[in-house]
Amino acid sequence: MTAYAEKLLSQESELRALREAIQVRLDELLPAGGERDMVRAAMREGALAPGKRIRPLLLILAARDLGCETPHQGLLDLACAIEMIHAASLILDDIPCMDDALLRRGRPTIHRQFGENVAILAAVALLSHAFGVVAAAEGLSSQCRNQAVAELSGAVGLQGLVQGQFLDLNEGSNARSPEAIATANDLKTSVLFGATLQMAAIAAEAPLTVRQKLRCFAEDLGQAFQLLDDLADCQSGTGKDLNKDHGKSTLVAMLGAEAVHQRLHEHLRNADEHFAYACRDGVATRQFMHAWFNQQLASFR
Amino acid sequence: MTAYAEKLLSQESELRALREAIQVRLDELLPAGGERDMVRAAMREGALAPGKRIRPLLLILAARDLGCETPHQGLLDLACAIEMIHAASLILDDIPCMDDALLRRGRPTIHRQFGENVAILAAVALLSHAFGVVAAAEGLSSQCRNQAVAELSGAVGLQGLVQGQFLDLNEGSNARSPEAIATANDLKTSVLFGATLQMAAIAAEAPLTVRQKLRCFAEDLGQAFQLLDDLADCQSGTGKDLNKDHGKSTLVAMLGAEAVHQRLHEHLRNADEHFAYACRDGVATRQFMHAWFNQQLASFR
Repeated sequence: MTAYAEKLLSQESELRALREAIQVRLDELLPAGGERDMVRAAMREGALAPGKRIRPLLLILAARDLGCETPHQGLLDLACAIEMIHAASLILDDIPCMDDALLRRGRPTIHRQFGENVAILAAVALLSHAFGVVAAAEGLSSQCRNQAVAELSGAVGLQGLVQGQFLDLNEGSNARSPEAIATANDLKTSVLFGATLQMAAIAAEAPLTVRQKLRCFAEDLGQAFQLLDDLADCQSGTGKDLNKDHGKSTLVAMLGAEAVHQRLHEHLRNADEHFAYACRDGVATRQFMHAWFNQQLASFR
Repeated sequence: MTAYAEKLLSQESELRALREAIQVRLDELLPAGGERDMVRAAMREGALAPGKRIRPLLLILAARDLGCETPHQGLLDLACAIEMIHAASLILDDIPCMDDALLRRGRPTIHRQFGENVAILAAVALLSHAFGVVAAAEGLSSQCRNQAVAELSGAVGLQGLVQGQFLDLNEGSNARSPEAIATANDLKTSVLFGATLQMAAIAAEAPLTVRQKLRCFAEDLGQAFQLLDDLADCQSGTGKDLNKDHGKSTLVAMLGAEAVHQRLHEHLRNADEHFAYACRDGVATRQFMHAWFNQQLASFR
C-alpha cells in the first residue's frame, strides 16, 4: 500500500471512531424513556437516526487543528449540542406548515412518525437541551461556555436558521436575484457552520483574528453546502423528498447545474484558503471537507 | 390616609415602575424590524402585548428580597428572558395542532395574526434569544450566567414545559387522578416558576439551603397558579378562549370549584411559609403574591 493510501485509510478510520463517539455521547445525552414517552422518542429519532454528522465532526476536527487537546468530554458535548440544534431545525423544516416533507434521511419525517405536535415539542426540547448541554460542558471555563451559548443563540434566531427558513418559505417561490438566494442560503446553512467553527475556536481559545477568518471559512463552506443540497435535489438516493425545491427559485433553476458546479468549487477554494490562513498547522479539517465534497459530487455522476 | 393605605399605594406605584422597566427593556431586546419582517413582528406581539408579567416581576422582587442590589441591567435581562420563554410557550400552546386557541390576552392568537409557520418560528426565535440574553447579562459573573442558562434549559425541556404540554395534550381528555393532574400542572407551571426563583437566587448569590426552599415555594405557587387558571376558565373577561378545558380532566371538573378554592389557599399558605423560611428579611415577594391572588379571586365573584 502506498503512503498516501495508508494516510487516507487512517483518516477514514479516525472519522469512523469520531462518528461513533458522537453517536455514543448523543445517546447518553438523550436517554431512552418509557413506552409512552413520545417526545423523548421523537427527540432520539430526530438526533440519533443515521446522519452525516458534518457539523459535530467539523467542530472536533477544527478544534484539534486549532490546537485543542485530544477530544475531551466538553468538546464532544459542544459537538453534540450543534447536532441537536441541527436535528431540531430539520424536524421543524419538515412539518406540514413549513416544507411538508415526507422523507428525511431515508425514513418517514418525525411528524409522520409521531404526529405534528410531538414533532414540534421534540424540536423545542432538543433546542433547549442543546443550550443546557453547552452551559454544563466539562473542561471549559464558564466564560467559554457563555460565549458558546451566545454563538448558538445567534445562529438559531433572527440572524440565523429562523430567518433563513422564513425567507425560504416566504420568498422561495418568487423570482429572486442570485444575491437574495445567497442571503437565504447564508442564513439557512452558513450561520450554523459559523457557530460550529466559533465553538471550535472557543474550545481551542483561538485569538480574534483566527475567529474572524473562521467566519469567512464558514460562510463559503455553507454556500458550497447549500449548492450541493440544491444539486442533490435533482438526484435520487439522497434519502430526502425529491424535487422539494420544485417551484422554488434556486440557483440551479436559474443558472443551470454546470454553473452551480463552478460556483460550488469557487466557494470550496475560498473556504480552503480561509482555513489555511486561520490555521497553518492543522490539515484535518480541510482534508475532511475536500474528501466529503468529492465523495458527494462523485455520487451525482 | 392611613399608614397601611400609604404602604399599599407605594407598593402599587413601585410595581408599576418595574412593569414599565420590563416593558422598555423587552422592547430594546426585541427591536422592531421592517415591514416584511414578519417573524420579528410576531416575536414582538407575543412578548410585548400587555400581560401580567408575573414571572419577571417575581424574579426581580425575589432577588431584591434575597439581598440583591437595586435592579441592575443584568437582573432586568434575566427577567426579560423568563418573559420571552413564557411568551414562546404561549405561542406554541395556542397553535392549531396543540390547543388551537383563538384568543390570548384579549387579542387574536399569534398564528391567527401571522400564520402558523411564522408563529412557530417566532416561538423558536424567542426561546433561543432568551438563552442569548441570559448568556450576555451584564453585572453577573460568567458562572452565574451559566447556572442561569442551565436552569432555563431544564425548565423548557422534558422535565418542564415541553413535557407538561405533552401530558396535557395526550392525557388531558382521559380520566386522571388528582395526582396525575398535579404532576402535569407542576410541569406546565411550577417548573418555570422554579427557574424564575432560581435565577433570582443566582443573581443574589443565595446559599444552597435557600435555593432548596425556593424550589418548594415555586412548586406551591405554580400549583396555586394553575388552579387559578382552571377556575378562570369558567369565567368571562380573562382575554382567553373560554371553556378551552371543556372535556379535559381538570381538578375543577373533578372536585368542584369550592374544593379547588380550598386547595388553592392551602398552596398559597405553604408557598408563603416556604418563602418566609428562605428569606426572613424581604416581604415584597410575599406581599406581591398575596395581593395578586386576592385581586384575581375577587374578580371571580
